[in-house]
Amino acid sequence: MDVIALNEIQAAFSPEAALKNIKDGFIAYSQQKVNVPPVGYLGFQEPPGDCHIKYGYINDSPYFVIKAATGFFKNHLVNLPTSDGLMLVMSSQTGQPLALLQDKGWLTDTRTDIAGALAAIHLAPQNIQQIGLIGCGIQARHQLQWLSYATTCKKVSVWSPSLHHCEKFADEMAEFGFQVLPTKQPEQTISESQLIVTTTPSREPIVKTEWVQPGTHITAVGADAEGKQELATSLVAAADILVVDSKDQCCDHGETAHAFQSGLLDNKTIVELGDVLNNPYVVERSSTAISICDLTGVAVQDIAIATTVYEAIKNKSS
Amino acid sequence: MDVIALNEIQAAFSPEAALKNIKDGFIAYSQQKVNVPPVGYLGFQEPPGDCHIKYGYINDSPYFVIKAATGFFKNHLVNLPTSDGLMLVMSSQTGQPLALLQDKGWLTDTRTDIAGALAAIHLAPQNIQQIGLIGCGIQARHQLQWLSYATTCKKVSVWSPSLHHCEKFADEMAEFGFQVLPTKQPEQTISESQLIVTTTPSREPIVKTEWVQPGTHITAVGADAEGKQELATSLVAAADILVVDSKDQCCDHGETAHAFQSGLLDNKTIVELGDVLNNPYVVERSSTAISICDLTGVAVQDIAIATTVYEAIKNKSS
Repeated sequence: MDVIALNEIQAAFSPEAALKNIKDGFIAYSQQKVNVPPVGYLGFQEPPGDCHIKYGYINDSPYFVIKAATGFFKNHLVNLPTSDGLMLVMSSQTGQPLALLQDKGWLTDTRTDIAGALAAIHLAPQNIQQIGLIGCGIQARHQLQWLSYATTCKKVSVWSPSLHHCEKFADEMAEFGFQVLPTKQPEQTISESQLIVTTTPSREPIVKTEWVQPGTHITAVGADAEGKQELATSLVAAADILVVDSKDQCCDHGETAHAFQSGLLDNKTIVELGDVLNNPYVVERSSTAISICDLTGVAVQDIAIATTVYEAIKNKSS
Repeated sequence: MDVIALNEIQAAFSPEAALKNIKDGFIAYSQQKVNVPPVGYLGFQEPPGDCHIKYGYINDSPYFVIKAATGFFKNHLVNLPTSDGLMLVMSSQTGQPLALLQDKGWLTDTRTDIAGALAAIHLAPQNIQQIGLIGCGIQARHQLQWLSYATTCKKVSVWSPSLHHCEKFADEMAEFGFQVLPTKQPEQTISESQLIVTTTPSREPIVKTEWVQPGTHITAVGADAEGKQELATSLVAAADILVVDSKDQCCDHGETAHAFQSGLLDNKTIVELGDVLNNPYVVERSSTAISICDLTGVAVQDIAIATTVYEAIKNKSS
């Protein structure tokens, strides 16, 4: 069994291979060609924390994957990052453990970025004058960099509750060639951007329906657990195109859940990302359409990215 | 994060510490002072196999444990053992992975042996003239060695469907000071032994009620999944003392399940092993009592043995 440290994972990582394999993973997921049981969960009281255990396989793959991801919210008191995690790649032919990827959560962040990039590639309007970001944390940084696979636009408007953080973000992203303008009101970021990514842990909707202009695409990645919401319920209900990574999850605890559970989506077709990736003509956007992609994170992304890294390292050493 | 190989695990392993900690683990389990979610399961069709993911913690422990255990039943075709497995020890204070124990299933075998030893220590009659074994596989070998913690008796009768295997077993165990007599009929082994351990994967009851003499204790470890059964249903129903590792599991898929689901145990008190270990007077055996201990395997054993090994290695290196 190989034990692979984060720097080795990053050195072997191929963005193009990961994009392809996560795309194929989403397609397999939506075609129900995967075995992904419900997520295991352990909660901790003092200090407060949790561990999610995701596992499964894509049918006919020689591998299965088990991921443990932890979040301990007082870790900053002991100078540790909040999140940690690892992935185990196992043989679906013999059950043997093949590799431990000590990615410390990096692969989880990255597979989320890649889902955002895939959504933007397939759903964003053709003419993007400005990218809008709601939230300026680690996820926003990575999402923005991965959007280079979807658009050449480098002009960015960013809003978060802290203008100071937005200014720091703007300085940092300038190094990567982005021209980032912090705003004092989310309305300005939303109404002037054509490709928007929301990455906050908000529990109250930030993005109001009336701010969103025709011809806008929004990818929402913040709502990954019950009680979280970034977009107004009426905005989700009114979207011309509503794509989700998982119907089951998004209708349970994603952005979609609020509109779905209020009965506002009865006559709307919710489309899974895997179906769009398999056949882009499933959704055809008019120049004035408003599209939303609701990403809650599915285990098949972990499975795809872990096997991508494992195969790259195996091929390198053979 | 430490990665610990099987030989290092075995070198650091203290049987006495493991006995104590697994005993304490059973007590905590029966007092509901643990957080042990349902077992995760992945099945594979071709080649046929499965993976069980057990995880959880004992309240107030600084650790939690995730175990992956696989069984691939055609592995002998590629010269690999059927079972494999590993355990992850994680911090319940920060969520950080602390150690990967690459035990290849050895810790799972051992924690099962220890449960058998604890049952024998607390439930077996005082006067043991002969130990009886039904089944002569790897689990029988280990169970017999661990019974040294419960009895000084070295005289053993063994039956399995293969007399040849029993003879080989007798030769091997002679090296450890056991005088093992293979029998051609299970009745002989059962009727002449006072402490019996059954370790077969049988799906039909082997041990008949009328063979079991007054004053006998039987520990059954074979029935760890639905459909398995080693003891006659009427024997379990008629036992004077019926102890289980987990009421939930044993009434669902242990030896106890058949009698319980037939309504034969309505008026009988089923006692959990943890309650017996906490207070041996919970069950008081007369000289003629027949007692049964039904072991299906609970995650708290994995948690206890993994933390025992981790602490031993940590203390050694500090």
